[in-house]
Amino acid sequence: MIYLDNAATTKPDGDSLRRAEKYVFDQFYNPSALYAEGYAVQLALREARKNILSLIADSSAYDLIFTSCGTEADNQAIFGAGRRGNVVTTIGEHSAVFAAVNELKQRGVEVRFAQLNADGSVNEDSLLSLVDDKTSLVSVIHVSNETGAINNIFELAHKIKAKNQYTIFHSDGVQAFGKLNFKLSGDIDLYSISAHKIGGLKGMGALIKRKKLIIKPYIFGGGQENGLRSGTENVLGIKDFEFAALKRYEKIEDCYQKVSKLHEVLKQRLDKSLFKIISSENCSPYILTVGAEGVRGETIMHEANDAGLIIGTGSACASNEKKRYSRVILACGVGENLADGILRISLSPENTEEEIVAAAQILNKIVANRKRIMA
Amino acid sequence: MIYLDNAATTKPDGDSLRRAEKYVFDQFYNPSALYAEGYAVQLALREARKNILSLIADSSAYDLIFTSCGTEADNQAIFGAGRRGNVVTTIGEHSAVFAAVNELKQRGVEVRFAQLNADGSVNEDSLLSLVDDKTSLVSVIHVSNETGAINNIFELAHKIKAKNQYTIFHSDGVQAFGKLNFKLSGDIDLYSISAHKIGGLKGMGALIKRKKLIIKPYIFGGGQENGLRSGTENVLGIKDFEFAALKRYEKIEDCYQKVSKLHEVLKQRLDKSLFKIISSENCSPYILTVGAEGVRGETIMHEANDAGLIIGTGSACASNEKKRYSRVILACGVGENLADGILRISLSPENTEEEIVAAAQILNKIVANRKRIMA
Repeated sequence: MIYLDNAATTKPDGDSLRRAEKYVFDQFYNPSALYAEGYAVQLALREARKNILSLIADSSAYDLIFTSCGTEADNQAIFGAGRRGNVVTTIGEHSAVFAAVNELKQRGVEVRFAQLNADGSVNEDSLLSLVDDKTSLVSVIHVSNETGAINNIFELAHKIKAKNQYTIFHSDGVQAFGKLNFKLSGDIDLYSISAHKIGGLKGMGALIKRKKLIIKPYIFGGGQENGLRSGTENVLGIKDFEFAALKRYEKIEDCYQKVSKLHEVLKQRLDKSLFKIISSENCSPYILTVGAEGVRGETIMHEANDAGLIIGTGSACASNEKKRYSRVILACGVGENLADGILRISLSPENTEEEIVAAAQILNKIVANRKRIMA
Repeated sequence: MIYLDNAATTKPDGDSLRRAEKYVFDQFYNPSALYAEGYAVQLALREARKNILSLIADSSAYDLIFTSCGTEADNQAIFGAGRRGNVVTTIGEHSAVFAAVNELKQRGVEVRFAQLNADGSVNEDSLLSLVDDKTSLVSVIHVSNETGAINNIFELAHKIKAKNQYTIFHSDGVQAFGKLNFKLSGDIDLYSISAHKIGGLKGMGALIKRKKLIIKPYIFGGGQENGLRSGTENVLGIKDFEFAALKRYEKIEDCYQKVSKLHEVLKQRLDKSLFKIISSENCSPYILTVGAEGVRGETIMHEANDAGLIIGTGSACASNEKKRYSRVILACGVGENLADGILRISLSPENTEEEIVAAAQILNKIVANRKRIMA
């Protein structure tokens, strides 16, 4: 089976899990316990926090709050910072932000949505025009989970702060962390990451927060995570996240180069008379989104599945919404006929060129057959 | 090392983890993905949901929402149901409920706290007197995490519903699930459980909900858990929870009998001239809370630790609050001199009688020595 749905989830890294299991089989103690064994686990959590944070941020300027997933991190950012005045975001957000801001709207906060460019990136003029002196929060996804489009959040955040220095800037970095090589600029106040998109376990994420920014907790209780996220810490998940992230960042450039190559091969090998490329030239190489006009994406996905290839039809997280067309894809200006045939092919450094070549062959054959039948 | 802080966390069951790892090393797919491999994981989650639910509830009348911990389950219950009118709870709640209702108070909801009996159970008259026709939610802990006192939540819920049939009844069952043998009566609307207190992994809990009750989600996004808890499911944690819970319930009566015996031995062996027993005769056998007058609990705990015994000084979740006296213990009517010397000794069916006898010896010796020094 060729697995090309790595934006939905990745195969967890076995070595990282085996190392982290020390905190199940040996040091299983509650990190809040005051005896030596509990404190040792607390120190192990601190180390994980410092190590993960240092991969993308200056740890003298930023803190990291472990959460149970990227979605919770996004929710904490939105509900913790998006309070008064208006909240500005984009049509292209992951549902974790999109559903959260819609809930904020229900609670009486004005929410404004910036338009997208054809590749799924946010339209800068549209975004900036929505920000005013009442904007409490702006949230812009770093890498689109549907098209792979990269938003230059550093430049956007800088321009937004120039318009309103009190606006808090959040970005969902779930598809960027461990894939693009960057450091958070001081204009980014909040940044969400997730473990299972880069070889960690499901059920683990984090919200990175500028130290000077004060936000409210979202889950209240025993005061773990410096009072910002209560609940006994998922030590296995946290240490596994640390190990998987460190492993990934050791060779993040090599991974990027390799995946870029795979991305190019895939794009070349797909028959352009059958597939329209939605992802732009400068998107994240980890995602290639294409459309097959007149053929349902779900049909292609299931036929590919039978042929030994796993791909996505869009965000796995959107599958529960049970809507035929993706909100993000439509906002890219894609017509319904093409939007019906959207495939998200997402790569991992574990994939091989042989897999990619075979995948393109399978997809070309399926769509060519379908078109022949329909003709 | 003798481990008697099982109410803080338990040593995870290795067999359950090894079985659940199938969902890391083999079936690692996103359960929301629409292809066969994703759907198979979705089915595995359904099975876990059904199996865990059936242990304590009629699954035709109840649903189960997986959450990232007991604290999140409590928060979802409190924020999802405690909205209008007033909310009634007790001074004896775990901080996951106590901090959440205090946040509700900040948001303008009236919160009323019932008094406790000397053993830490809620005073029934006090509780019932607070419930009126404006009470939207009552939350009463099932087994006190600090004293082991068992609240008869079935009777309490029934009497509350007789006063106001529209009041929603929630109980934090984290220290009861997998320890006491019970089934939820129809008067219980919401019930929180946690995996790591019964041999599962940290980072996994659930909120059990009466099917007919409609509550709002607390974490918004991709609509997982029937729209009630978004975020990619922690499949490893969920399957591990299922396996650990099924294993525990297979022999829940034997565990109860064994732990009851250990509890009795411990109580007998502790020198009554040194220790005052706080837990009542009919408390959960899994917890024995005692006080050593005039000796600080933390001192005893650290000396015991050096002597090879791990015990708690109260709720691990309260350690972050950095308060000298436990709110719950003071509410039991314990004076500050005794409240300073509180020890929570919490048992597991894995403990042996030899460990218990040794633990009592260690504790008697430490406190006798301390008293001699101070005399």
